[in-house]
Amino acid sequence: MLAKTQHLFDDATRVIAGDSRWQGRTSDDYWAFVGPFGGATAATILRALIDHPQRAGDPLSLTVNFCAPIAQGAFDLDVRLVKANRSTQHWSVEMTQDGADVATLATAVFAERRPSWSHQQSTFPQAVPFEQILPYPKVAAPWVKQYDFRFVDGEPDFGGKPQAMPASAFSKLWIGDRIPRKIDVLSLMSMSDAFFARVFHARGELVPFGTVSLTTYFHADAADLAAEDTTRVLAVADAKIFHKSYGDQTGELWSPGGRLLATTTQIGYFKA
Amino acid sequence: MLAKTQHLFDDATRVIAGDSRWQGRTSDDYWAFVGPFGGATAATILRALIDHPQRAGDPLSLTVNFCAPIAQGAFDLDVRLVKANRSTQHWSVEMTQDGADVATLATAVFAERRPSWSHQQSTFPQAVPFEQILPYPKVAAPWVKQYDFRFVDGEPDFGGKPQAMPASAFSKLWIGDRIPRKIDVLSLMSMSDAFFARVFHARGELVPFGTVSLTTYFHADAADLAAEDTTRVLAVADAKIFHKSYGDQTGELWSPGGRLLATTTQIGYFKA
Repeated sequence: MLAKTQHLFDDATRVIAGDSRWQGRTSDDYWAFVGPFGGATAATILRALIDHPQRAGDPLSLTVNFCAPIAQGAFDLDVRLVKANRSTQHWSVEMTQDGADVATLATAVFAERRPSWSHQQSTFPQAVPFEQILPYPKVAAPWVKQYDFRFVDGEPDFGGKPQAMPASAFSKLWIGDRIPRKIDVLSLMSMSDAFFARVFHARGELVPFGTVSLTTYFHADAADLAAEDTTRVLAVADAKIFHKSYGDQTGELWSPGGRLLATTTQIGYFKA
Repeated sequence: MLAKTQHLFDDATRVIAGDSRWQGRTSDDYWAFVGPFGGATAATILRALIDHPQRAGDPLSLTVNFCAPIAQGAFDLDVRLVKANRSTQHWSVEMTQDGADVATLATAVFAERRPSWSHQQSTFPQAVPFEQILPYPKVAAPWVKQYDFRFVDGEPDFGGKPQAMPASAFSKLWIGDRIPRKIDVLSLMSMSDAFFARVFHARGELVPFGTVSLTTYFHADAADLAAEDTTRVLAVADAKIFHKSYGDQTGELWSPGGRLLATTTQIGYFKA
């Protein structure tokens, strides 16, 4: 019997269990221009938490602060259960390389999600079906090639014909793994950082950019995700302000069936 | 010469400097139903960071995870500079009481904000002037009395006449300190948690609620805030989803002059 071929994303976010210290390795497949794709780093941290023997419940929130560049190669994850209550867990994770300073600092909350009154106030964004849109042409960074981006609104044309400045920072697009993979909390975490920098859209050009802090909230637990059973999300992202070298981003990840799976926000550095 | 009377908010968020361990004390003036108002806790943490001798730059982001109830009285803040680069600092703060488990876990980013291309994509929300709106009548929780809330949209009537369910979770309101105090990053931090729980608005009633994780981004540095020179903000808040005992909130804090000062998001527990 042949071993099931593992998805590249699962290779990229693999962790080796420790007690409080776990190990991982950056992935060349999910490499960005000057370091690993932040979404893969965040998903690797989340995987270590999910695989942890003390973990209980589903992820509710993850905040990742990118403190310093991450070099190609191995890293350690110092995983600590800071506080556990009856229904929630609070975690802290510090990523280091070769015993040097902390490169990535994360906090997470897990929760046993009990049935309650349920109300989705946001309305599902209207969109042309995935199948009717051409994939976004692959660009230089390896991680971008791992995704199948299909723009409904705001498809960028970096370095193309000049556009009115500033252009809208809003995007609506389908996001799937290039090799389809069922959406789980790991892919949601990664996809929540898979939007192109808003400043690229607003300026119509690539400029030096780096995410500084990323927060994602999960609005679906494992049972909800199993029920959606999908390999893609409809994603929207926008920005409110670019000022003194930093800009924000907000985003939503929806199932094709119309369920809001995750919301995300980040603040990033830019040079322009 | 008489000593200048200190504002209640400054009393409430006072910290006593240590090296890595700082001390504070909960404030009865900013007490909520079962613990201190989370905004005051967050502002106290931010004050300890701002007052820290190693601090450089302005706050860019603060994430506060509320891990366990905080009892009335003294607390310790274990403040750690996790990583400093040329222009950014990454901090971690753990609040404990009497050497017990961590009650509050926070991470923060400070940055030297250099001049750059600047663009405020969001538009200032239209609003009736502060002076033309009656203050929201005071309610039971002491902390609410410390603020002057003037609703432009979505004024709640908890326990009043029944309303269509679910109602909108959107609010637009002016927020100032009851005794006017110039807006600084500390008051912005606190005000970013000063919205009534979105679930109260959506259901038209008070239900058990607690913020689990709060993230605020600052889009104005000290010079920007000094230029605004105001004692109030125009604030909007909304929610996207309530599901399986947790709901989100997004918010914006604007200066009366039309500058976006801070954006915020949180996820909270509710019982309904």
